[in-house]
Amino acid sequence: MSNIFGKSFRITTWGESHGDAVGVIIDGCPPGIDLSVETIQEQLNRRRPAQSDISTQRKEADKAEILSGVFEGKTLGTPISICVWNSDAKSKDYEEMRSLYRPSHADYTYQAKYGIRNWKGGGRSSARETIGRVASGAVAKLFIEKEYKTEILAYVKTISTINSNVEIKNLDSTSIESNIVRCPDQSAAKIMINAIKEARKSGDSLGGIIECVIRNCPIGLGEPVFDKLEADLSKAILSIPACKGFEIGSGFEGTRLKGSEHNDDFYMEGERVRTRTNNSGGIQGGISNGEDIIFRAAFKPTATIMKPQETVDSSGRSVEMKGRGRHDPCVLPRAVPIVESMVALTLADHAIRQRGQVGTT
Amino acid sequence: MSNIFGKSFRITTWGESHGDAVGVIIDGCPPGIDLSVETIQEQLNRRRPAQSDISTQRKEADKAEILSGVFEGKTLGTPISICVWNSDAKSKDYEEMRSLYRPSHADYTYQAKYGIRNWKGGGRSSARETIGRVASGAVAKLFIEKEYKTEILAYVKTISTINSNVEIKNLDSTSIESNIVRCPDQSAAKIMINAIKEARKSGDSLGGIIECVIRNCPIGLGEPVFDKLEADLSKAILSIPACKGFEIGSGFEGTRLKGSEHNDDFYMEGERVRTRTNNSGGIQGGISNGEDIIFRAAFKPTATIMKPQETVDSSGRSVEMKGRGRHDPCVLPRAVPIVESMVALTLADHAIRQRGQVGTT
Amino acid sequence: MSNIFGKSFRITTWGESHGDAVGVIIDGCPPGIDLSVETIQEQLNRRRPAQSDISTQRKEADKAEILSGVFEGKTLGTPISICVWNSDAKSKDYEEMRSLYRPSHADYTYQAKYGIRNWKGGGRSSARETIGRVASGAVAKLFIEKEYKTEILAYVKTISTINSNVEIKNLDSTSIESNIVRCPDQSAAKIMINAIKEARKSGDSLGGIIECVIRNCPIGLGEPVFDKLEADLSKAILSIPACKGFEIGSGFEGTRLKGSEHNDDFYMEGERVRTRTNNSGGIQGGISNGEDIIFRAAFKPTATIMKPQETVDSSGRSVEMKGRGRHDPCVLPRAVPIVESMVALTLADHAIRQRGQVGTT
Amino acid sequence: MSNIFGKSFRITTWGESHGDAVGVIIDGCPPGIDLSVETIQEQLNRRRPAQSDISTQRKEADKAEILSGVFEGKTLGTPISICVWNSDAKSKDYEEMRSLYRPSHADYTYQAKYGIRNWKGGGRSSARETIGRVASGAVAKLFIEKEYKTEILAYVKTISTINSNVEIKNLDSTSIESNIVRCPDQSAAKIMINAIKEARKSGDSLGGIIECVIRNCPIGLGEPVFDKLEADLSKAILSIPACKGFEIGSGFEGTRLKGSEHNDDFYMEGERVRTRTNNSGGIQGGISNGEDIIFRAAFKPTATIMKPQETVDSSGRSVEMKGRGRHDPCVLPRAVPIVESMVALTLADHAIRQRGQVGTT
Repeated sequence: MSNIFGKSFRITTWGESHGDAVGVIIDGCPPGIDLSVETIQEQLNRRRPAQSDISTQRKEADKAEILSGVFEGKTLGTPISICVWNSDAKSKDYEEMRSLYRPSHADYTYQAKYGIRNWKGGGRSSARETIGRVASGAVAKLFIEKEYKTEILAYVKTISTINSNVEIKNLDSTSIESNIVRCPDQSAAKIMINAIKEARKSGDSLGGIIECVIRNCPIGLGEPVFDKLEADLSKAILSIPACKGFEIGSGFEGTRLKGSEHNDDFYMEGERVRTRTNNSGGIQGGISNGEDIIFRAAFKPTATIMKPQETVDSSGRSVEMKGRGRHDPCVLPRAVPIVESMVALTLADHAIRQRGQVGTT
Repeated sequence: MSNIFGKSFRITTWGESHGDAVGVIIDGCPPGIDLSVETIQEQLNRRRPAQSDISTQRKEADKAEILSGVFEGKTLGTPISICVWNSDAKSKDYEEMRSLYRPSHADYTYQAKYGIRNWKGGGRSSARETIGRVASGAVAKLFIEKEYKTEILAYVKTISTINSNVEIKNLDSTSIESNIVRCPDQSAAKIMINAIKEARKSGDSLGGIIECVIRNCPIGLGEPVFDKLEADLSKAILSIPACKGFEIGSGFEGTRLKGSEHNDDFYMEGERVRTRTNNSGGIQGGISNGEDIIFRAAFKPTATIMKPQETVDSSGRSVEMKGRGRHDPCVLPRAVPIVESMVALTLADHAIRQRGQVGTT
Repeated sequence: MSNIFGKSFRITTWGESHGDAVGVIIDGCPPGIDLSVETIQEQLNRRRPAQSDISTQRKEADKAEILSGVFEGKTLGTPISICVWNSDAKSKDYEEMRSLYRPSHADYTYQAKYGIRNWKGGGRSSARETIGRVASGAVAKLFIEKEYKTEILAYVKTISTINSNVEIKNLDSTSIESNIVRCPDQSAAKIMINAIKEARKSGDSLGGIIECVIRNCPIGLGEPVFDKLEADLSKAILSIPACKGFEIGSGFEGTRLKGSEHNDDFYMEGERVRTRTNNSGGIQGGISNGEDIIFRAAFKPTATIMKPQETVDSSGRSVEMKGRGRHDPCVLPRAVPIVESMVALTLADHAIRQRGQVGTT
Repeated sequence: MSNIFGKSFRITTWGESHGDAVGVIIDGCPPGIDLSVETIQEQLNRRRPAQSDISTQRKEADKAEILSGVFEGKTLGTPISICVWNSDAKSKDYEEMRSLYRPSHADYTYQAKYGIRNWKGGGRSSARETIGRVASGAVAKLFIEKEYKTEILAYVKTISTINSNVEIKNLDSTSIESNIVRCPDQSAAKIMINAIKEARKSGDSLGGIIECVIRNCPIGLGEPVFDKLEADLSKAILSIPACKGFEIGSGFEGTRLKGSEHNDDFYMEGERVRTRTNNSGGIQGGISNGEDIIFRAAFKPTATIMKPQETVDSSGRSVEMKGRGRHDPCVLPRAVPIVESMVALTLADHAIRQRGQVGTT
């Protein structure tokens, strides 16, 4: 039951890293949306391996096929099935993983949970699973852009100890896509790229922080009490491989402020209720208030490294291992479209729920 | 659909701050568990208002009544209905909230979402809703303690800029409950308590960070890919009022490490697979690995303050307002049992799902 | 997870026959609906025991209390908690049921499933559970009446071998409520009432068939492929105690027709697409087509009878038992409002889902 | 959200009649089950078109491919994706359906609901959707057979007015599969086959009744109060195209009995609690009692007929139409494996839920 995400706009992803294919079914998509496979492909290309020399070199075209749910260029309201065939799986790189648990990977826990695992390329725990998220996220994005002009922009804020300096209000898609690390601060980006190359060279890996802003989110999304918008966003983001933290608005830093410093005073801007500051991060009481929704997500350094490591095998013996297989020395640049996709899926779901219960959004 | 939490062990909470009562229904509780109302009351007492001179002075006994689902001291497997009557609601304190939106509260967003709201005492957005969480969390706790000897301990790690120094491995319930701020570092606790009293005196409020450790979590809980254990914990925690962030294991700080520093090497401890370090925070690939699960949650300073603030009313006029009503100058001490409860509910749900799918836990 | 019904308009019922109370939580109710406790009470009165001399003589006022979710006479969009206190439980009548399994009751299966049961008055399997359905059904009814002018009318079509002759198009609430058996064919009703009294006198019980018509159901309700409207109605109805069958439109009889006889030809009535016949029963491909939705439900004779019966006890010994406790010699008259309630809950759920996905209903 | 069936063992079907493919994802399947594609193919072959001269002549191999979730011959516990490519779609047969609503089909209601439809071959409302049900049902069957030795057998009981005479206790798979109409009463089968051929010749169609028996269903399946086993079976069966009715045990006929005739007395058979009669149909209080579960399902005559019919088109004009396209003159023989599949899916789901909540099945 856990490969399904969302309540009203629902996706089910399937597939393993070295299986025949990976894919997604969207259930509950509104009918009548203009949808071409190119819209989906565009997002998949942002997630694709081998897109630059700081990403994994696994060669996958990641070409999307729409197998159902779209007719004469429009969504039908029935399930949309999207499939991407795996083509460059090199399972022999993984032969020794049959019995060996890679540190900080999911090999051991999958084995312990299910009593069996597909050890090739990480199987289901591989980041290839996120293809389904990005493909369906492209559809969700289309829906909320068309219906509410909502815009979702994520970018790489830090890599390891390297910070960037980005003005949220100037952020746009072009500046994010202007370099391969997806950090719109060009000088920081350059340092980040070098650091990632350096890490790769030394067989190591880096982590970092992605920041995301949602503009023009309809007011009123988010359902108290458990499905608060920040709670559902948090789950969406923490479900991405390698994510270790989520904070919204003032986040962890905001705990150091006093209430009188932290509260966001209301004022009128014409007919619209606005807040002077945005420590709330666009959500109050679990419901969007029309201000920018801003959150940050922490991603750990990639678990696959080329340095020797201590581990154990499935028969309980100590082993020294060295990483193999192609991998990203830093997942963040490719995680940017994944974050945006999970946000789009969450918002589409809540938009549909809101107009269901209240009759308008 | 959003007042229901969990998939297999499911709770539904109901009630508003100044309504007749608040409560919870547990659906899917295993049968045959010894359950007395005292077990529930004990947890509610830790959450109760007016429990100390740093909490709100609203006088509520918060006395739990079990209305169904328990028979001759044992759970039946059928819905457990728990109800707590409101007794000390002082709605007149809130009369001006009828038309006025308190900064950083949910007044405006509820109104914008639903077109109506119960303005008395925050209505549904009041922290009194968490009574249902704590009452049902007590039952969940009982189940996982009995079945797996799982222990959940949360404590106040920081208040505002005041840090504590606590060794996770020495943490126990007694030390947490040894002072009213629920910080087992006694000297830090003293400073925290003073700071909270100071904040109250000046009509202000404070935030902070709660840390939580889960010991003896069964190996194998958490369902990839969307219901990863950290993702579901994160949603559970972010759904608590005033929570702004969640991080697990190495969290945001861990993004600064290299993979070679961050990876948790495996070794054998007798028959058991262990990790040398625990940057993963007890969860790998979304599944518990048997190590302590450790996370932190950020709570903002209470929105209700006694200082004058700028805001608007429902007819769009600017107003200056001063806080009224009784409130906590800092929510963290009372949030400790709420955090533990949300964890217990999440673990009970996942334990049942695991033994459902795999046949054992 | 099974005490929750519906996906978007969701109810959770709780309570046992001889517990303190029974009740229901509605989650996902649209906000802004005028709702008074009288509206709920009116429906509960139709379901109430001791309402006539052919129903059980258990004396329960079944007085509803709304504990949350309604404010100044309007629904808030937050959970509506409705509670009815049990007052006339006579558990001593049931003392021997502690160890004894009543034939065709749920005593044995509850015990076998859960390893424990509340043997007093049938516990959770008692028809008192349906109070929650009727109370929440009254709210659902209000919503669909107000929003779509949908009308739901059920009546007793047969009792045992006694048929009635009722023209669906003349059916109205007044004629249904004009006698205690709820059969608008007055001469049949008289015979039915006598038969029920006769059955009671001889310590026996009767079954029968309820027919239900839904008028002005919005076109487009029902979600292929699994949540076809007839499938969800069927589940709703079969979940009522004592129900053994469901058929829609031409039903079982229709299997004897040829396609050329059974098909419902389309024609235009002004702007509206209509069908000449209605063998489809108002639903085609799982979606309402605007014609009357018509279905029938079979209810078995009440399991509790006063005649001696063979059974076994929990230690595996053969026993002869005689029924005790107060009971309905025929459940159908009181099942009429329960059927209507389950229909209203199903339609409200689907209406909200439809306007969620498609944007309009 | 309606293309997903089940709560713990969950399937999502996708695909349209004349799209590229149809398929299913199984989420929540227990790990470690031996599963080969042949097991699935065997069931698909029973559902396949053109399997005999009384079924549609559309030529589809309906060859299943397993794209994920199975590794080295065993289920992984992760999603199982099964895909069947469409090959013999003849869309030109359907060209006129672009604007025309076929009587008693879903053309009109899909259009009214979604504002768009795939008019080729019925699109999503085609019975080809049931391929996903049968493919996943084969997996569910495997699970419950292996785990509980549960056996599910459905057969054609009546065609139109032709009854058969079948002893449930002698029913076996061989006798059901011994003729093309799947009725083990050979002389009735012969008459049925002739009647179907006759109907086809005259451009007409027939309906009928399928009866199903479940043997060795574990005691304790079914969750009161809404997910009673008969309620979930009923929904499962009514969600099959062309199904108009469901009855369990004594069903509609049983309403004519008195309680004293209808009640199933208990007795001991060794250690086991048995019932003397089985009017309950193997389920009491919504929970299986270990006796055979027996139900019947009504299927209407196929809507597609070759005779001229009155209808309207999408611009509101009256039209006379004649059926085209290849079709089954009677759906029942091919519906037999679909009924069995829906039962298997329902039981697998409930078995997992039961061992989740109670710890054993």
